[in-house]
Amino acid sequence: MTAFAATPQESTAAEQEAFVTAVAGKLTAFLAEKSMLLAGISTDSLVLVDSIASLVTGGKRMRALLCYWGWRGAGGAPGAEEIIMAGASLELFQAAALIHDDIIDRSDTRRGGPSVHRQFGTLHGRHGWSLDEERFGHAAAILTGDLCLSFSEEMFAAIGAGAGSRARAVFNLMRTEVMAGQYLDILEEVSGPTKPHGTAVARASAIIRFKSAKYSSEHPLVLGGALAGASPELLSGYSAFALPLGEAFQLRDDVLGVFGDPAQTGKPAGDDLREGKRTVLVGLTIDAAGEPEREFVDTHLGRQDLSDAEIGRLCSIMVDSGALAGTEEMISALSSTAFTALAGLPIDGAIAAALSALGRSAVSRTS
Amino acid sequence: MTAFAATPQESTAAEQEAFVTAVAGKLTAFLAEKSMLLAGISTDSLVLVDSIASLVTGGKRMRALLCYWGWRGAGGAPGAEEIIMAGASLELFQAAALIHDDIIDRSDTRRGGPSVHRQFGTLHGRHGWSLDEERFGHAAAILTGDLCLSFSEEMFAAIGAGAGSRARAVFNLMRTEVMAGQYLDILEEVSGPTKPHGTAVARASAIIRFKSAKYSSEHPLVLGGALAGASPELLSGYSAFALPLGEAFQLRDDVLGVFGDPAQTGKPAGDDLREGKRTVLVGLTIDAAGEPEREFVDTHLGRQDLSDAEIGRLCSIMVDSGALAGTEEMISALSSTAFTALAGLPIDGAIAAALSALGRSAVSRTS
Repeated sequence: MTAFAATPQESTAAEQEAFVTAVAGKLTAFLAEKSMLLAGISTDSLVLVDSIASLVTGGKRMRALLCYWGWRGAGGAPGAEEIIMAGASLELFQAAALIHDDIIDRSDTRRGGPSVHRQFGTLHGRHGWSLDEERFGHAAAILTGDLCLSFSEEMFAAIGAGAGSRARAVFNLMRTEVMAGQYLDILEEVSGPTKPHGTAVARASAIIRFKSAKYSSEHPLVLGGALAGASPELLSGYSAFALPLGEAFQLRDDVLGVFGDPAQTGKPAGDDLREGKRTVLVGLTIDAAGEPEREFVDTHLGRQDLSDAEIGRLCSIMVDSGALAGTEEMISALSSTAFTALAGLPIDGAIAAALSALGRSAVSRTS
Repeated sequence: MTAFAATPQESTAAEQEAFVTAVAGKLTAFLAEKSMLLAGISTDSLVLVDSIASLVTGGKRMRALLCYWGWRGAGGAPGAEEIIMAGASLELFQAAALIHDDIIDRSDTRRGGPSVHRQFGTLHGRHGWSLDEERFGHAAAILTGDLCLSFSEEMFAAIGAGAGSRARAVFNLMRTEVMAGQYLDILEEVSGPTKPHGTAVARASAIIRFKSAKYSSEHPLVLGGALAGASPELLSGYSAFALPLGEAFQLRDDVLGVFGDPAQTGKPAGDDLREGKRTVLVGLTIDAAGEPEREFVDTHLGRQDLSDAEIGRLCSIMVDSGALAGTEEMISALSSTAFTALAGLPIDGAIAAALSALGRSAVSRTS
């Protein structure tokens, strides 16, 4: 107990922390219930829920928090049950996406631990089971991701947003767009080198809009607003803030994927280059580099067996071509657009400050 | 126009045909809407919906039909919009399951055409894209299955069954159970040989209950009833019919997977043996065969490179051990239990006849 009243910033921070705790509690209770259901089928199946549970305990909860402040900005009550459920649903959706992404990208680690398909591979190896360990790992992780995707939707449906509601429409659109965006992403990995160099940046920009900016930023914020019954004008204002913010966020992610500190990002150095992600950073490189460098990029990106020296050369080309600096400029410009839009939103100052803090950490983070 | 009144059987058949047509129309309209949405993202992404569309035009529509007659038996109106949507949702769910199953099982064909991951692999090869064709095919099919799973749920949610309704509970349970059952299925493939022979049949029976009987038969019928507001007693009666029917259906599927005519099943001979499915048929074989035959089964099942001679020997062991005959006996016993329960259901005679015809074709089919 203190004799002084909390400052607006302090009470916002406390409210945000209470929400994060409530989302975690909701996820724990939901998954405990699912574990009981699975135990009735076979205790062998409990590992499916365990791997989901370990995945949703980590993460920055950025989507859930955007959803929360979108709700609060539109007049939703602090700590209401429906927004906790919406946050939990978004976290489950993200977990499902990560599980399948890691199979697609052949990523061995996630949030500092083994990815789900690697966990199942290890389970196979430890028991000395027959047939192929990697294949079992992938198969089990496909099913775990499907289960998690269903859980996400089950949680969302339990909110009780009507069939024709704006919130339901946003939830549906979010899922379709992110899956289409992810497909365009893997398509670009394989077909990018056959397409004109001059349009690489435009293609990469379209991909991050749908795969990332709308999914990770715009839709969560708008969803929260829609659940609270926000006006179409406020929802448009939310989009004007969150879409460029989300694009800046993804550009930051791309930079960290190549130039980030593995100790901070939790991903091995060069992972994004071995995966062959054709990001805006890569597009700018291809656009600006000389012919020999361009050819080096096209022939080396996506090779699983890249040496440290080759990774170093790819990084040098990105720096020397000015592509890294260009990406940083784009991040600044997009951030500026986003925060200008935020300043114009007709929402409570403390809530705007919370969104601003969330946005700043998203675009200037190091992990 | 005819001067004679239709017989009950004729009018039931016409009603069933009208429903199947309506479900197909609903799917076509829904997917056309999604194509428009994807076209706005990138025409490159349209292939995702195209592959789903081609998959949902085929199939026996068994789940949708069970759902329909469950609805009608509980007093639902013929051709009502909500039951058409429920049928379409079940078809989309099944399509999603097939897309991911085919990746898991490495099946090249589905419903007489290439499986979805093979379609994407071919697309890659045709364009001469870079990196790995198979890996691209799997990645794209994982995403297509995810999209289809989301579509299934979007369609179900549009029905507007309340958050706490029985129908929603059945839909949720169905998804969790089938995914857990599929996991147990792949787990049994790799861990079966390390477990006691004497419990192989019990393990395989549990798998088909959750992976298949509940998902493909019990839940669709109960879902239809629940949407029409059926009493708990009627829903229990539906389960008493549909659960053993579904088990018999899966046992028939297992027999066809080994002994079926490839020209009729659309799957290559020996496919199930190469996949290494440890079915009840396999369990009975392992239980009854002599030691050398048992060892031959354990060491050959699941090998992708099985020769025709090895497939022939596996088939012989299944016949000679009495396992095939034992499976047929189980199909008969389960069918008998199912049809006895059906006869006791308090539903209209014409509807019971429609369910009976559906059940008979499920357990005595050749494809």
